[in-house]
Amino acid sequence: MADKQNTKGITVRKADDMAEWYGQAVVKAEVADYAPVRGFMIIRPRGYALWEAIQAFLDRLIKEAGVENAYFPLLIPESFFQKEATHAKGFRPEVAWIAQQDGEQERLAIRPTSETIMYDSYSRWIRSWRDLPLRINQWCNIVRWEVKDTKIFLRTREFLWQEGHCVYATEKECEQETLHYLELYRRVAEELMAVPVIMGKKTASETFAGAARSYTIEGFMPDGKALQMGTSHMLGQGFATSFGISFLGTSGEHETPWQNSWGMSTRMLGALIMSHGDDKGLVVPPAMARRKVAIVPVFVKEQEKNDATLALARDLAKELKHYEPVLDERDEVSAGWKFNEHELAGTPLRIEIGPRDVEQRQAVLVRRDTGEKRMVPLADMRDEVRRTLDAIQSTLYGKAKRFLDESVREALAWDAFLAADKEHRLILAPHCGDAACEEAIKEETKGVTARCIPLDREKSSAAGMKCVRCGKEARYRAYFARAY
Amino acid sequence: MADKQNTKGITVRKADDMAEWYGQAVVKAEVADYAPVRGFMIIRPRGYALWEAIQAFLDRLIKEAGVENAYFPLLIPESFFQKEATHAKGFRPEVAWIAQQDGEQERLAIRPTSETIMYDSYSRWIRSWRDLPLRINQWCNIVRWEVKDTKIFLRTREFLWQEGHCVYATEKECEQETLHYLELYRRVAEELMAVPVIMGKKTASETFAGAARSYTIEGFMPDGKALQMGTSHMLGQGFATSFGISFLGTSGEHETPWQNSWGMSTRMLGALIMSHGDDKGLVVPPAMARRKVAIVPVFVKEQEKNDATLALARDLAKELKHYEPVLDERDEVSAGWKFNEHELAGTPLRIEIGPRDVEQRQAVLVRRDTGEKRMVPLADMRDEVRRTLDAIQSTLYGKAKRFLDESVREALAWDAFLAADKEHRLILAPHCGDAACEEAIKEETKGVTARCIPLDREKSSAAGMKCVRCGKEARYRAYFARAY
Repeated sequence: MADKQNTKGITVRKADDMAEWYGQAVVKAEVADYAPVRGFMIIRPRGYALWEAIQAFLDRLIKEAGVENAYFPLLIPESFFQKEATHAKGFRPEVAWIAQQDGEQERLAIRPTSETIMYDSYSRWIRSWRDLPLRINQWCNIVRWEVKDTKIFLRTREFLWQEGHCVYATEKECEQETLHYLELYRRVAEELMAVPVIMGKKTASETFAGAARSYTIEGFMPDGKALQMGTSHMLGQGFATSFGISFLGTSGEHETPWQNSWGMSTRMLGALIMSHGDDKGLVVPPAMARRKVAIVPVFVKEQEKNDATLALARDLAKELKHYEPVLDERDEVSAGWKFNEHELAGTPLRIEIGPRDVEQRQAVLVRRDTGEKRMVPLADMRDEVRRTLDAIQSTLYGKAKRFLDESVREALAWDAFLAADKEHRLILAPHCGDAACEEAIKEETKGVTARCIPLDREKSSAAGMKCVRCGKEARYRAYFARAY
Repeated sequence: MADKQNTKGITVRKADDMAEWYGQAVVKAEVADYAPVRGFMIIRPRGYALWEAIQAFLDRLIKEAGVENAYFPLLIPESFFQKEATHAKGFRPEVAWIAQQDGEQERLAIRPTSETIMYDSYSRWIRSWRDLPLRINQWCNIVRWEVKDTKIFLRTREFLWQEGHCVYATEKECEQETLHYLELYRRVAEELMAVPVIMGKKTASETFAGAARSYTIEGFMPDGKALQMGTSHMLGQGFATSFGISFLGTSGEHETPWQNSWGMSTRMLGALIMSHGDDKGLVVPPAMARRKVAIVPVFVKEQEKNDATLALARDLAKELKHYEPVLDERDEVSAGWKFNEHELAGTPLRIEIGPRDVEQRQAVLVRRDTGEKRMVPLADMRDEVRRTLDAIQSTLYGKAKRFLDESVREALAWDAFLAADKEHRLILAPHCGDAACEEAIKEETKGVTARCIPLDREKSSAAGMKCVRCGKEARYRAYFARAY
């Protein structure tokens, strides 16, 4: 699927213009493409394979946690939105409606999230304590008619996600599991994608519409902007009350249950590309790459030698089949062209084999992340591939973690806060907790928002501190940054 | 999630009223539920797990065939539909449109199928022979605003499916692979679901809108109606021409490629339930069941004995963990109640263990399909479970295959045709191939349609035969039946 435009490399340096770099990386590496309808995207096979890696990793974890997958309808009656007032207000501007159809009395929305349609069913399915906990997840598409500029994966009018919706008899169990799902998101980000995150609680003004509290994992991108990568909402009892969900408790009394909802979307792919990509293209962490190795035979003029090279390359592909290697046998493009393509695609490892290597029973192993080349005896290749893939995974994580840690600036005073913002830092600052003061920060800085109050108590504690902006007593320390 | 209504069994016999039986089985076994919007469905965890089994089986096969997954937008601009005239005409009545949004000039449809939006991209992605074959599939939701009565899984306004869309340099390759995907559908139906099918070609009037020819797998349900279970369309070059897809051939000339599209949907779950279910509920073939065994400890009054029973049941659950057994430890419902529930759910095998079994180191193994009970020594249990699961799978298939084979009636004359229809048979009859004659059959019988011309040449051959209705020379023999 390499057309002429796409096989050209990225023409801008990531450090010089990350927005342009990102757009080129996504399209030229064939991760995604712009759709004919504005604000929509096409996820191409290379990008979808990354999403499948996330799905497989997370789906296993949530099933272990007792969650079952299901599927609820795409279309939601308008009246359902109105049942939970805060929720309705939060989502109404983004809802796409379908044109009236054959006598349906009510307007139908394309789901912007599925709390309302799911909880309507829950109110019929849940009868007694025996039905709890109820843990359901769905993998589906979502439409939110964004009015801001859209950007592939980061803000699109349609995206793919999973949304988990659980119901519990007790607040304690609900809170515990709300945090457990957040922990699973952290594992997706850090263990699979090698993207370090901060776990935190959203401030009141950033809390999900209808939730009691929202938890988040926040990443920090190389251009100095934060990215919300997954959220888990403790919904309290508000939706249950609005939708009439109750259960017969063990005591024989009717009780109102507690709920959570939690979601992670294709936005993750944006985080992945921005965190690890470089001027040559994508860098895919080995744990996520389906095809972890590209084997490139280097051809010369003598066909006989090429036959031997190819035979060896094929043997090697068989030996490494566990890594689903790409064996690039094409003879219509040069070896250098192939190297560029596999680098653009982000394949973690490349093995180059030429006629001399055949003679000497060796091959060149090239790391995508560092570019490091090593001559490896064929006898050692399998072990060396395994070791190097592990090394790439931890190097990528380590590098991104250092960047995150070094990006943090503590600011106790407003001028320090402004200075840190100028340097595109992730600012840890004490805050009074007042929504108006938080809004004032956003206005005065033209865009800095509270990302989260860290779950790490040592970091969130504001004992004896004053609010970084208004000087009143601080209630907590929170991370502030510009954000996608 | 067992509420009072659902734990009651099915109140009608399958043989007496299959439509009512089906509706009850689906809802009471918690496979699916009616949605608040008419014609839509909620796929509950038990049903979705069956869909996941189909996805896992088929996804592996198509990846082996070189197909890659991707994702294209939900919304399609109106002008795209108009590019391929036959296609547009075929789908227009079923399209749901979204209400006008912020200055988009064109009406947007919710996808009823994705040929048009995918091929628009293909026209940009495909440049030369190097880009072919291009094989892309997507798993997604589809909306078709059915005006006929809807029925869960069989005809719903939204359903889940996969749609594969491939492009080839040559007609031969395209035709071969079109048939290969049909063969994969046959394997899903027969090997995984134990539902035998007939592979055939649709007649001209039943061909997919815009295709050169359509291939199908047709099942035959116990109530004497056929069910189209998956189709693979050889599209020819029509869409490629309409969408401007061309490629630079090896000769240096621009050529028009050949395309196919193929789809299989959640309708499969309807076939599964109707084919194997019985008066007690679902019967899930072992190959499809995630949890293949239910272990039910039978409690008595003496707690000490129950402790021993439970300990043994837990040991057994560990030993059988490969089959992901359900260990039903509930003590608030009777053993009989549990048996009924697991039968309703269709769990292939049940193991009952009581105090006497503990003493005698044995347990009762009960087959869901036949109801057969056997006392099995614990030492033999693992082997016996494996053997019995295999036996259930082949018994289910064998029984359904016998039903299919015995349902076929050959009819050479119109009165024989009508008689066979009265007996709800699958009629194999010679036909002239004329669309008007085919339409007349449908009108005169009030609903009998040509299901397919069998791929089996011995069956399709009409040498020397006359059309069953008009008496003109027959072009082929086809299967005719009423259908879902």
